[in-house]
Order: sequence, then structure tokens, then C-alpha cells
Amino acid sequence: MAKKANHQEKKPLPKKPPSSSFPIGKLFLVTAVLAGLASFYVYKVLTTPPDLPELDLNQWWGPYPIDQQKDESIRPFKIEFSDVVVNDLRERLLHRRPFVPPLEDAGFTYGFNSNFLTRVLDYWQNSYKFKDREMFLNQYNHYVTKIQGLDVHFMHVKPKVSPDVMVVPLLLLHGWPGSVREFYELVPKLTAPRDDVAFVFELVAPSLPGAGFSQGAARPGFGPIQIAGIMHQLMQRLGHTKYYVQGGDAGHTVGSLLATYYPQNVLGFHTNFPTLTFSSRASLYVFLGSFWPSLVVEPELESRLYPLGKHVSHLLEESGYMHIQATKPDTIGTALTDSPAGLAAYILEKFSTWTNPEFRKAGDGKLLDKFQLTHLLDNVMIYWVSNSITTSMRLYAETMNKKMLAVRIDDIPTDVPTWGIKFKHELLFHPDCVLRLKYKNYVASSVVEDGGHFAAMEMPDLMAEDIFKAVATFREFHEANTPASSAQTVYDFTVKDLNGREVKLDQYRGHVLLIVNVASQCGLTDTNYKQLNQLYEKYESKGLRILAFPCNQFGGQEPGSPEDIFKFTKNRNVKFDLFEKIEVNGDEAHPLWKFLKTIQRGTMGDFIKWNFSKFIVNKHGIPVARFGPNTDPVDLEPYLEKEL
Amino acid sequence: MAKKANHQEKKPLPKKPPSSSFPIGKLFLVTAVLAGLASFYVYKVLTTPPDLPELDLNQWWGPYPIDQQKDESIRPFKIEFSDVVVNDLRERLLHRRPFVPPLEDAGFTYGFNSNFLTRVLDYWQNSYKFKDREMFLNQYNHYVTKIQGLDVHFMHVKPKVSPDVMVVPLLLLHGWPGSVREFYELVPKLTAPRDDVAFVFELVAPSLPGAGFSQGAARPGFGPIQIAGIMHQLMQRLGHTKYYVQGGDAGHTVGSLLATYYPQNVLGFHTNFPTLTFSSRASLYVFLGSFWPSLVVEPELESRLYPLGKHVSHLLEESGYMHIQATKPDTIGTALTDSPAGLAAYILEKFSTWTNPEFRKAGDGKLLDKFQLTHLLDNVMIYWVSNSITTSMRLYAETMNKKMLAVRIDDIPTDVPTWGIKFKHELLFHPDCVLRLKYKNYVASSVVEDGGHFAAMEMPDLMAEDIFKAVATFREFHEANTPASSAQTVYDFTVKDLNGREVKLDQYRGHVLLIVNVASQCGLTDTNYKQLNQLYEKYESKGLRILAFPCNQFGGQEPGSPEDIFKFTKNRNVKFDLFEKIEVNGDEAHPLWKFLKTIQRGTMGDFIKWNFSKFIVNKHGIPVARFGPNTDPVDLEPYLEKEL
Repeated sequence: MAKKANHQEKKPLPKKPPSSSFPIGKLFLVTAVLAGLASFYVYKVLTTPPDLPELDLNQWWGPYPIDQQKDESIRPFKIEFSDVVVNDLRERLLHRRPFVPPLEDAGFTYGFNSNFLTRVLDYWQNSYKFKDREMFLNQYNHYVTKIQGLDVHFMHVKPKVSPDVMVVPLLLLHGWPGSVREFYELVPKLTAPRDDVAFVFELVAPSLPGAGFSQGAARPGFGPIQIAGIMHQLMQRLGHTKYYVQGGDAGHTVGSLLATYYPQNVLGFHTNFPTLTFSSRASLYVFLGSFWPSLVVEPELESRLYPLGKHVSHLLEESGYMHIQATKPDTIGTALTDSPAGLAAYILEKFSTWTNPEFRKAGDGKLLDKFQLTHLLDNVMIYWVSNSITTSMRLYAETMNKKMLAVRIDDIPTDVPTWGIKFKHELLFHPDCVLRLKYKNYVASSVVEDGGHFAAMEMPDLMAEDIFKAVATFREFHEANTPASSAQTVYDFTVKDLNGREVKLDQYRGHVLLIVNVASQCGLTDTNYKQLNQLYEKYESKGLRILAFPCNQFGGQEPGSPEDIFKFTKNRNVKFDLFEKIEVNGDEAHPLWKFLKTIQRGTMGDFIKWNFSKFIVNKHGIPVARFGPNTDPVDLEPYLEKEL
Repeated sequence: MAKKANHQEKKPLPKKPPSSSFPIGKLFLVTAVLAGLASFYVYKVLTTPPDLPELDLNQWWGPYPIDQQKDESIRPFKIEFSDVVVNDLRERLLHRRPFVPPLEDAGFTYGFNSNFLTRVLDYWQNSYKFKDREMFLNQYNHYVTKIQGLDVHFMHVKPKVSPDVMVVPLLLLHGWPGSVREFYELVPKLTAPRDDVAFVFELVAPSLPGAGFSQGAARPGFGPIQIAGIMHQLMQRLGHTKYYVQGGDAGHTVGSLLATYYPQNVLGFHTNFPTLTFSSRASLYVFLGSFWPSLVVEPELESRLYPLGKHVSHLLEESGYMHIQATKPDTIGTALTDSPAGLAAYILEKFSTWTNPEFRKAGDGKLLDKFQLTHLLDNVMIYWVSNSITTSMRLYAETMNKKMLAVRIDDIPTDVPTWGIKFKHELLFHPDCVLRLKYKNYVASSVVEDGGHFAAMEMPDLMAEDIFKAVATFREFHEANTPASSAQTVYDFTVKDLNGREVKLDQYRGHVLLIVNVASQCGLTDTNYKQLNQLYEKYESKGLRILAFPCNQFGGQEPGSPEDIFKFTKNRNVKFDLFEKIEVNGDEAHPLWKFLKTIQRGTMGDFIKWNFSKFIVNKHGIPVARFGPNTDPVDLEPYLEKEL
């Protein structure tokens, strides 16, 4: 029976709308003006990075009273599946209540399919070998130590290698609803020496406080920033002043915070969740990119982000758990604490759907296509025996609240070299140019055309390979940047003139320098040479020196020999200083230019964008300003005059 | 330790932004233009009501095979707390797992407080009198009948009154996570005769399919529209062709759908959740109103809706359950099915927080300030013994999905007289002018400065009183509207001329009529009389007749006697027909004008807005157009010419 309200159709078309109507029409202009003002305001706010919130490493998060003799001991720990716990668990599984049958052909689209759940629970009750699995989980060394009032659990695995192999410390951070169990297949791969790299890892894999065997806080306010503080202290306590970090999901959030708070200590950050969740700039870029995708994302990855509506809608569909955990963790925690069936359904639904959203169509969620049931139940067991599901979910309440969101932590940049691995079915995707808003030294992305959220368990080989590659690159990064970063002024560098003779920049002491990369065949060549000459004529007597470095890296527009270049500049009556052709970007970039770029960073990445980029260096040898190719030399006058 | 990324501060201020930057600046204009276009598009879409989706009352929703001999019997039903169920339940309560302590001073802000939960569960296990409560719940007659393949449970309570008391049927629709239990205190109040009204109710209170003792569907797609179809059939099967409806929460949604699909059967709709959840127009009004609140909401109620940000943020905080139920009901359902502790926490958290958001601050959620624990547990018991929590939550998945939202059901108007009662702490608030977008005959709102979401249980006296008042008003509404609605043309009416003589409008057959309410002292008087004269002179010979009705309802601008009016019009040389002073709005409005308003509805309510409202009636006596006071008479020429 379809009815239709059609009385409005009887009305003939009036020339004007009836006068008493709501003035929606008149509001168009107002809306447009407001939108313009709002976007300008947003732009202003967004381009100012917020302050890093204070982090008090002495705050006590455990139950009161505060422990007066600070116990910093590191105690061995064993995972225990006691008979009492196991018997109680099997009783509960045996006496589980009949579950409502799934809707016809619903697969996993309404959540965990109750037909398949029966199979999982039967297996858990009858076939899961509790004692064997306890032994399996204890194959690595576990410890507990108290930090800020909380017992922090961690696995500590040292590689068995000869003393000449370099061992570097790596902090492994799991997410929700995962645990240290996620890393068991990865551990042997990361601790075994390899032919292609000269180092191997010593692993520290903590349980996130509140999840698994690490204690949760006793009072509100214990969020990811506080967890980062505790993780950092754990590494210090273990003697690792400097360390690498790997993380995904909540482990990514904590790892990213470590890179933000402790750039002197974190040598590199490898993330399998390379996203900026807490950045308004990132959201704006992603939104604006939806009009011009090619502006923000590589064409071959466009479908991972756009159409935005499709991805947002998918995210909405998959974020109910987050919404309830961020607001009522204790309510839902009660049920999951009391029912192993509920806990298994709640946790394992994520291992199906987050591994591949297509799995929702299958009655078994294709859970066993990618994982072994025993392994999945190991992870559920860790939550069950530690009775930690409620405290683990509170982390969402402490992360997604107004206070934490107001911090806009991902709008605060970090210099720590960062490497992301992008799995095809990860819940969120951000392009590199967005990630670079925060990670100023985002060195590379590995793009994987497969895999999902629980990558360490799903593809341990690939993950291990990628972590080694990333850390090798981080090490190169530090080697390449160390000399430059020890330099204080441009006087520390030596360059070569057009005849190949060394020129120590030391000889320019006391002068104001304009350093520019030039090319002979660029659309900008004419204006720039002409105006550089003008500048030089006008300010040479006041102490200006112009240092021009031919460079062929942009459109191959400086292809000639030193003689060609000399001839070209002579024709143009150039009187300022010309140097040997160099590279300004990449590994082979001249150290002087690496230094310039480190001190004066670029707007969309530090790299030089094109011919005729310009740096002003003051009388003390310090680069004080940077301008892009489109800034004409004569426009620099006010800046030069300020320094001269 | 606070650090700050401050390398950007070293940069001197450049005159222009570096050329390689993301062109955010340039996008301002584009954004503004897009916003303007978008709002125009939205306006166009919103002012076109969508089609009512088809509803197939023969679709089979139960498990297959389809029952061939249609069983329409009505079977008695008893609520049973069997020993097996009760013993199992008490075992579970006894062996509940230790819950994580609440965070310090968290009250109910992280969900149900686990300290207080212990008290609730102890009471349930040891003090709740299962057999007594079973008897209590069976005090009213319960039945089950099969509709579209589903067993539908309902309470049926007939009043015990002498035959001369009029009995009117009322369908009572509960919401989630409520049940028929919500109505137990209300039932005796609604079925007892009163001094102030001449009728009493016969009550039909079904369990919503999927919730409590009504069966849930076997396959996807069974949403509120389908439930409305089943409820309507239930009333028909009970012999109630025409009936009143009362509902809140999901019961409001279903009740509103009944009013939309069956305006011929629903005599009136009383809602304690007077909101338009599925209307884009309502959302737009509410949003625009945030700039000018007085445009949409009475000043004394402004704080229930604005500042919008505060209310949206509150709603976000309280809608996690909705988000997860709309996406993964089966996953969370597993845990709640298996754990009575979890079920109690999940359901009773709502009875605390939705009754008053301030209750979240208290360690006991002030749950017992408003309700008795026994009564609350009655409701939890209904979900427990019927094992219906999962199917009840699936209703959200069938309501909040893309398909259902695309229907924009609340943008489809209904003529059923509607009355809302607005409790102070209800989750959503919509002003009357917004409600009138859908409810064309929204007769009144009761505003209550107290009370929350579960009003029938919290304030049964007030609710009963309000329902009687509403239905009395609905009955007056029908009495007042019946004569008018049986009329087909204006020729069915009789009016009086300035001398009090009756004039049958029948005598205007074959003429085009312009009917207008006039006044002598209005700012519009001069122009209108002048132009009405012009129109009359121009078109009188072609068959136009102008019928002017003096009316003193707008600013008291027609205060004079018939003689005064006659003199006034004579001075102005008026030649067209003038009639006796009448009322055009309210109960005393002239039947002709009621008829005009019913056929040609107004833009912001049907009422006449001011002096000089104009109706055009064609040669067959049918009103074909309506114009507001600001439309000048000469602007009507094209419309008149079309009819003449």
C-alpha cells in the first residue's frame, strides 16, 4: 500500500513564495559568507601548531597510598592458566545460553555469526590445549615492573648472536583488541641475524597499561600521552636511552606520541597504522582532496581514500565499538567480563572484519582463512585470564574525549624519521603528503596490496622484512644527517667553484649571503638572472654576496658543462659567485644544501621544489629565511635590508 | 616535560606565502560558492516531500516454510518464570566474575558503576521474588497472535465500566530497552472512568516484534515500517478499525509511521518523544535556528535545544549503544544473552542516565530515586526470560541503515492530530514549529519541567492525565473538522451579509471567486482595497466575484460595527461583496474558512497569518490557490486569468 501526500501539488505556482515562509532563501548568502569566514579562521588556527601538553612522569596512577620506597625492580612473570580459571571458563562455555540464530544469509554483517560462534566455543571448550598454550606463551621471558604506581608487564627477547653483531633495541607496541600474542610469530624473525643488514633486534613488547597483564589506572585521565610516558620510562629502566619503536592501532598512537615527546630518544618510528587521527589539518587536506584527489594522493592509491563518502560510511559502520568504548566502557565491560562467549565474539569479530571487510559476507567471517583458531584464542585467553577487557576499553574513553581531541596532538610535528607500511584493508588510509604534515622526516611508505589490521599475526614475514628495511633506512638517515646537524653555520662547509677549486665558505664571514640554485633553460631564468644582477649591484657594497649553484635536477634545465655555464653567465654579465654544478635533493645532495634545508624547512616537505629556490644567510652564517622559485629576487629586498 | 616544536618561529615573515604551498587560500572562494550551490540544492530537495515507501502486508517474516492455513487465532499467553530459568539465572548471578572496580569518583560517567552493580545483582539473586513478580506481571490479560509469520504478543486490558461509558481503543507502544512493563502503573489510570472526560480507554499494549515476547524476524529488512504494518493489522484483528496511538522512543517511531501510513485509521497520536529523527528539513531548521534561536523555539525552551553544540555533544556521548546496535547487534547481543549481570548493567544504565543526565555523577546513578529496583528488574526479566536482547537490538540495524534514512520518513506529512508531551530530560527536543513540518495537525505540546525518557514508569499520573487531555482534544478536533471535511466545494456553505441575511454560496456557481479577509485599520488596507476595486472593475464582466470577510483577529484592526464597515467601504467606492464579520482562525472560525484552510494549506501552519489573506476558487467551487497578506491583489491577475 503506497500512499502519497500530494495536496501540495494542487497549488498553482505562485510568482513569489508566500510571505510568511521561513526565510531559507535569504540565508544562502549568509551561509556562503559564514563558510568563507569559517574557512579563513580554520586556516589560521590550523597553521599554528598547538603546544605539546605537559606530561608529569611522577604522577601516581595506581591505587593510593603512594608507594614511598620507590620499587623499580624488574620481576620475572609467568602467564598462568590455572586450573581454577580454566575449570570456571569451561563451565561457562558448557553452560552458555542458546544464542539467537543469525538472520538468513547475514554472514557477519550483523556482527559475529552465532552459528559459527558455536564452533569457536566448542573448540575452545573441548580442543584448546590450555596447558600447552600456557607453555607456548611462556616461551619468551616475561617481566613486570612498577612505573608511576602501575605494574607494567612486558616481554623481553634478546637475540642470541655473537658479540660482533650489532644489537639495536626495538619497542613493539600492540593495539586493541590485540596483545603481546600478536608478536609471537614476528619475534624469531626480528631476533635472527640476516644477510642483508648488519644488525639485529633486542625486543621489548609491553602489554599496554589496562590491556592484558599491565595494570590499568585507578582514576580518570590516564590516556595515550600518559602511556607514552610510562613506555619511555620502561625503556630507560632497561638501559635503552635510544631506541626504535614499532606500533599499530593504539600502539601507533603511543608510538607516535613517543616520537613527539622524545625525539632525542626515539631513533625511528615504524608504523603499520600510518595515519593522523588527531590532526585537523590532516582532516582538512583529506576533505579538500576529495575535490581534487590527485592533489593529495597517488593515483594508484586513490581508491583507498576516495570517494570519501564511501570510506567515511565504512568507518561509521565499523566504529560502533569505539563509540561505546569511548563513552560507556564499564557497562559493556561488565558483560564481556562475565561471558567468555561474549568476549570471544567481541574480540574475534574484529579479527575477521578488520582483516578484510569482504569477510563480512561469509558465514564464518573467513576467520580461519588467515588465522589459526588456537592462535586467536591465545589472544582471547590473555584478556580473559587477566580480566582486563574493561580497563582496556577505558583507554578509548581517555583517548576520544574532548580534552584529548583539543590537544590536536597530530598537528604537532616530529623530526623522528618515520616509515609507514600501508596494508590494503587497514581501517584508515592517509597519503604520504598528509603524513608529512606531522612526520617531517617521513622517509618512505611500503604499500602492500593485501593484509589488514592485525598484520604482525597475518603476515609476519612481510612485517619483519619491512621493519628491518625501515630501521636500516633510519640508520642511514642518521648517518647522513649527523655531519650536517653538527654544523652550526654555513662557514663549516666547503664548496667548489666552476673550475673545481675548493672554496671554504668561511671566507664569507661577515657578509649577508643569498644562496640560490640556478639553471640556464628554465622559464624563470631570465627574470632571476636579471634581478640577481640588480640586487648584487645595489647591495654588493653593503656586504651582500650571492652564491649561485647550478643544478640539473629540475627538468634537466642545466645540462651544460662548466664552460657552457661560464659562457652563459658571462653573456649575461653576471658578477656574483658561481659554483660547480651540484645536487640539492636526494642522497647525493651537497651537505651545504642538506644543512640549509634542515635549518629552513619547506612548506610541503623540505625538498627543494624547483630552480631558483633562495636562502638568505645572515652575517653570522645562519640561514634565516627560505623562499620558493616563484619569489622574485627583487622581492627579497626588505629581508636583505633587515640583515645588511 | 613540555617540549615545543618551534623551528617555524625562526622564519622571518615573508611577504607572500612560498609558492609551493597547498592552495588553501584560493579555495576559500570555491568553498563559499559550493556552499551556496549546495544549500540551494538542499532547499530544492527538502521542499519536495519524498514518496511513502510501499508496505507489503503479506510479506512473511517468520522462518520458512510459510504457514499455508493462515492461523489468525488469538491465543492466551502467560509470562513464565520457570524454575529451570530462575535456577539457571541465580547460578549465573552467584558465579558472576569479579568486576573491575570503577575509576575513582567516576560515578556512572564511564557506564554502570560496578560497585553499585553488585548491590543490584545481590538483590536480584536473593531478594527479587520471582513467583510474586510472575503473578504481578500476569495480572493483566496477555495474548499472542500470528501476523506475517511472527508471533505477536500483547496485553489487552478492557475497562470495567457501565455500558453507557464510551470506550475508545488506545494502542500503547513501548520503546527500547523498555517493554510492556513500563505501562503497568499507567494501565489502571487509563482504564478508570474520570469526571473530566466522557470516555475511558481499552488498551492494547504489544511487545515490539523482537523485543520481549514478540518474535523477531528471520531475515534482514524488518524495520519500523514493517512493524507499523503489523501493529495496524493487530488492531484490525481485534476489531478496532479506528484507534488512538501512544508511543515513546521506538514506540514513537512506530506510532508516527502508523499516523503516516494509516491516517484514516489513527484518530490521534500522543507521543512522549515528539521529535523528527528522520527529517532533513527538521535538521536544517534546527541547524539554522542555532544562529537565530527565537526564530524556531520559544525563549523559555531555548535551553533544551541550544547551544546546539552542547546538545549534539551530549547526544554523541549517549549514543554509543545506538551506534553498536545499528551495526553489530549480534556481537554485543551474544554477551548480553549469556550474562545477566551484563544485561542488567546495559539496560539499567539507560534507566539512570536517560531519566536525568545529572544522575551520572552519582555512584548509584540515583537509579532508586525514581524507580523501585523490583520494577526495574521486572523489565530486565522480560528481556532475560524471552532471550530477546539480540533481536531487540537488531531493530536499530533495520532503522539506522542507509535505506531507511534515505526514505526521510519524517519529511512525509500526516494529517493525524498529534499531541506531544515534552519532558525536561528527554534525549531529543524539537520545537513545535519543527514538529509541524510533519504533523500538519499538531494540536499542542505539554511542557514538563521534570521527567525523562521512561515517563510512563516515572510519572504515571502525569502521563495518564496528559493522554486523557490529548484524546479529549483529538475528539474535539474531529467534531470541529467533520462538517468541513464532508464538504466538496464552497457551494456547500452559507454565510451572512453585512445585514445579517443568509447567503448561500451556491449562488456563485460558475463564477471565479476571490475570497479575502479584510480589515479597515491595517497597514495593508489602502493598497488592498484599491487594487481589489481595480481587479473587480477589470474582471467583473468576465465572471470574477470578490467575497470580502471582515475579521478582527489580527491586531484588532477591524473593531467596528457592520454600519462602520459599510460606511468605510462606501467611502472607498467598494462594489464587490462584503459579508458579516467572522473569525478565520481557532475553534470559532467560520466553517467556510476552515474548509478553505483544509484544502489550501499554509506554509508555516494552516492558520491565516494576517489580514488580506487570499484564496482563489475556480468555476467549480474548488479552492485552487492561496496567497499570503503580502501578495498584492494585482499580482493575482495571471492566476485569475487562468481560471476565468
